[in-house]
Amino acid sequence: MSESHPEPHFDLDELHTLLGPRLVRDPELIAPYAVDTSRAVAEGAPLAVVLAESTADVAAALGWANRAGVKVSVRGAGTGLAGGAMAYADGLVVSLERMRTIIDIDVPNRLATVQPGVVTADLDAAARDHGLFFPPDPASARISTVGGNIATNAGGLRCVSHGVTSDAVAALEVVLADGRVMRSGARTRKNVVGYDLTRLFVGSEGTLGVITEATVRLKPVPPGSPRTFRASFGTLEDAGRAVTAIVNSAARPEVLELMDALSVEIIESFHPSGLTVPAGAMLVGQTVGWDAQEQAEAITAICRDVGADDTEISETDALLEARRLSNPALNARGLKISCDVGVPVAALAEVFHGIAEISAKHGKRVSTVAHAGDGNLHSTVESPDTPVGIREADAVIDDITRLALALGGTISGEHGIGSVKRHELGWQLDPVALGVQVAIKRALDPLGTLTPGRGI
Amino acid sequence: MSESHPEPHFDLDELHTLLGPRLVRDPELIAPYAVDTSRAVAEGAPLAVVLAESTADVAAALGWANRAGVKVSVRGAGTGLAGGAMAYADGLVVSLERMRTIIDIDVPNRLATVQPGVVTADLDAAARDHGLFFPPDPASARISTVGGNIATNAGGLRCVSHGVTSDAVAALEVVLADGRVMRSGARTRKNVVGYDLTRLFVGSEGTLGVITEATVRLKPVPPGSPRTFRASFGTLEDAGRAVTAIVNSAARPEVLELMDALSVEIIESFHPSGLTVPAGAMLVGQTVGWDAQEQAEAITAICRDVGADDTEISETDALLEARRLSNPALNARGLKISCDVGVPVAALAEVFHGIAEISAKHGKRVSTVAHAGDGNLHSTVESPDTPVGIREADAVIDDITRLALALGGTISGEHGIGSVKRHELGWQLDPVALGVQVAIKRALDPLGTLTPGRGI
Ligand SMILES: Cc1cc2nc3c(=O)[nH]c(=O)nc-3n(C[C@H](O)[C@H](O)[C@H](O)COP(=O)(O)OP(=O)(O)OC[C@H]3O[C@@H](n4cnc5c(N)ncnc54)[C@H](O)[C@@H]3O)c2cc1C
Ligand SMILES: Cc1cc2nc3c(=O)[nH]c(=O)nc-3n(C[C@H](O)[C@H](O)[C@H](O)COP(=O)(O)OP(=O)(O)OC[C@H]3O[C@@H](n4cnc5c(N)ncnc54)[C@H](O)[C@@H]3O)c2cc1C
Repeated sequence: MSESHPEPHFDLDELHTLLGPRLVRDPELIAPYAVDTSRAVAEGAPLAVVLAESTADVAAALGWANRAGVKVSVRGAGTGLAGGAMAYADGLVVSLERMRTIIDIDVPNRLATVQPGVVTADLDAAARDHGLFFPPDPASARISTVGGNIATNAGGLRCVSHGVTSDAVAALEVVLADGRVMRSGARTRKNVVGYDLTRLFVGSEGTLGVITEATVRLKPVPPGSPRTFRASFGTLEDAGRAVTAIVNSAARPEVLELMDALSVEIIESFHPSGLTVPAGAMLVGQTVGWDAQEQAEAITAICRDVGADDTEISETDALLEARRLSNPALNARGLKISCDVGVPVAALAEVFHGIAEISAKHGKRVSTVAHAGDGNLHSTVESPDTPVGIREADAVIDDITRLALALGGTISGEHGIGSVKRHELGWQLDPVALGVQVAIKRALDPLGTLTPGRGI
Repeated sequence: MSESHPEPHFDLDELHTLLGPRLVRDPELIAPYAVDTSRAVAEGAPLAVVLAESTADVAAALGWANRAGVKVSVRGAGTGLAGGAMAYADGLVVSLERMRTIIDIDVPNRLATVQPGVVTADLDAAARDHGLFFPPDPASARISTVGGNIATNAGGLRCVSHGVTSDAVAALEVVLADGRVMRSGARTRKNVVGYDLTRLFVGSEGTLGVITEATVRLKPVPPGSPRTFRASFGTLEDAGRAVTAIVNSAARPEVLELMDALSVEIIESFHPSGLTVPAGAMLVGQTVGWDAQEQAEAITAICRDVGADDTEISETDALLEARRLSNPALNARGLKISCDVGVPVAALAEVFHGIAEISAKHGKRVSTVAHAGDGNLHSTVESPDTPVGIREADAVIDDITRLALALGGTISGEHGIGSVKRHELGWQLDPVALGVQVAIKRALDPLGTLTPGRGI
């Protein structure tokens, strides 16, 4: 997990000769690249930012940095919540934001080929012009990039029905740490030729290569008009039990999200939309297809069986819009100490019970939103933004994380490790697995050029 | 791709001390382990076979072999079609056939934990006792093992609706080449912690580690009773066009298979079941769910629109049973020179047209069965079992393989590379990707102990 980095001995003018104005050195222009959207603290100003416009630009930048011993961070839109895209002090930032061309939409094969900087929602919109859609839909879809989604294996609201980003990736073009360019995958539905390098790069958080082109799988837009549903519960545990029951029923929610009472309060005060704060928690979700209404009715009926005191079915998207505001609403309150744990769906009631106990033990209020159908929870701790406050909040998150692991869960369901969760890696991975992770990193990036010291 | 193997300097008695009667040395007993079900020619008799009964047995065997410089082949049921499980001359065979315990079926989380030697159909049957099923269903499901399915990332008939084996694997226990044991994955639906080692081991064909336990995802058995459908076409191209149209329609076939005229003839003469040989090709498939009948009607209607001259819907499984006999029927005729190429589904008519041209050019009859909904084709060449006949048949397969690649396809959709397709690797993978494959192999198995010289 530790890389020895050679002393830099670089000549930035050499890189400027290769890239011209795509190499930006103006300190004011490059300052925003020092951080991402996580709680991680900036490591310092980078040397320069490469605003790559082609695979050749990326290859030139990496080739130079690898020779020069300069650390490289890779950046899509910087919406990441794990610190993975933050600049290194005196490092080079390779930004993909200008590579935003949708190269091809192949309707009969339901494939799209895109540059990495395409904004997630833009690809989705382009696919919808052909009756198709791009399944990955992180709550950040309007600001994140497809390359960033792939590099983090992003989740989102529709995962419960359509899987995660890796399920939507067919083939990649990748620039390796030393500037060499390779392709993985195929345009077919099945492909078993050598190790699955496509899956290896998905979720590799900028540590193994820079994704410069992706061929992704689209799906047909379901027919009919979607329904949104809500069910409010007196306790968080009941809401958890309802999720387990729904997921084990014949119902097929396209989206199944949870907000606890405190989250609803925080979101509602950030952007009032008339949500009634529940006593315990609220499930919101969506159903699609010709039977969207029947599906929504079946789901709300299960919720009432499990103890929901109020349910609602609607044709507008307002409930999900509110859910998508959770992250900005927390940010607006300065609340950034949160987790991204996952548990098996049958353990939801148990994990909620445990979180309440942890909250009480530490005397800290905890708000939780969850991609509930996937068992993926984001709990945030209310604590002052002081060294002591942060330490106390971290202790709460540590306890929640260990609880999730004890229930057969994971330390990260969708945001990744980056720099923020790196100290937790050994809690989940055994030493042999950790050793294999490091061996792979060394095999692909022996000098530790790409996003060193993060991810694994 | 080439490993330098240290000179063996071994003491088999040392391994016997560790394993007792689980180490089999009797030449008669170990002879069947020299080959698998592929066309590959035996490399010679192994030293011994380890009939592992536990992870510790596997770890002991690999630790010993790695120290001793003895090549190890890994074996489930030996039904593989790529030569991956064949013994090495004077090598050690690690067989998982005795590790056939279904450890746990976790119904609310839809997970099963199994030893690798569990037969695929046995796991499926056990899951069905709980209203669940195991999605992977290679035509060999009654004889292959779950570990072998995972190691090859097996396909099968239901992939068009349920994905490939990798989509069904949540977590693994793996013994590495040097005998160290590690775990990957989690029991959650989402997990983004480090590189996706689970996916790396899936499809690694015994070259990176021995899978000693797997936690796999089950699905609920669809309600209602399934329907089987058939559509017969005057030309193979029309059948291909029909598949593209079905896959792009609102219909949801659970299975969508193709047999060309010659295949139907071969299967029918091996095991007569009253199939009428079509002029061009026959599509057979299955629909499930409450609307199975409506779905089957929608699919056969599309087939008639595209030009099917005869269609049929039934409640029995006979048509699919016939399709499953394709491999044994070809074997019974001594026909083993075949391919496993994949193309994007919209290219099916084009690839069939090209195969006919190739067949004519070479003056060789070619029969084709296909997991058509996935664009995955098995074409087999009729040619005498003589050196010249084999060379001529290989030339046909080479042409078909290059055609598939030219259409954006793959050299292997489900059987893997093993020893049989290794010369084709460089046709699909660029030199940089090949280099990465080798670097990963070296990182995990530096001495080249596990299945050396195969797979990648
Ligand atoms: C309001 C909000 C809501 C969010 N909701 C969700 C959600 O529902 N689900 C979810 O999973 N995440 C969510 N996120 C987190 C974030 O949006 C995702 O991680 C997203 O995938 C990051 O995309 P990006 O383009 O901003 O990547 P960045 O933040 O720029 O980078 C993220 C990581 O990927 C690497 N990377 C980026 N591009 C490339 C590339 N082309 N090649 C190689 N590596 C690259 C970076 O080095 C870094 O390690 C949310 C964030 C916000 C701010
Ligand atoms: C009649 C017939 C029909 C078939 N139909 C299909 C089909 O529809 N779809 C399909 O994909 N395949 C099919 N096959 C091929 C074959 O059944 C599959 O490849 C199957 O997954 C192999 O399982 P096995 O247990 O026999 O593995 P083996 O043949 O014993 O081994 C296959 C490979 O996996 C490795 N391996 C096996 N077990 C382990 C383990 N525990 N850990 C690590 N490596 C391991 C071996 O080293 C070898 O490289 C068919 C074969 C036959 C004979």
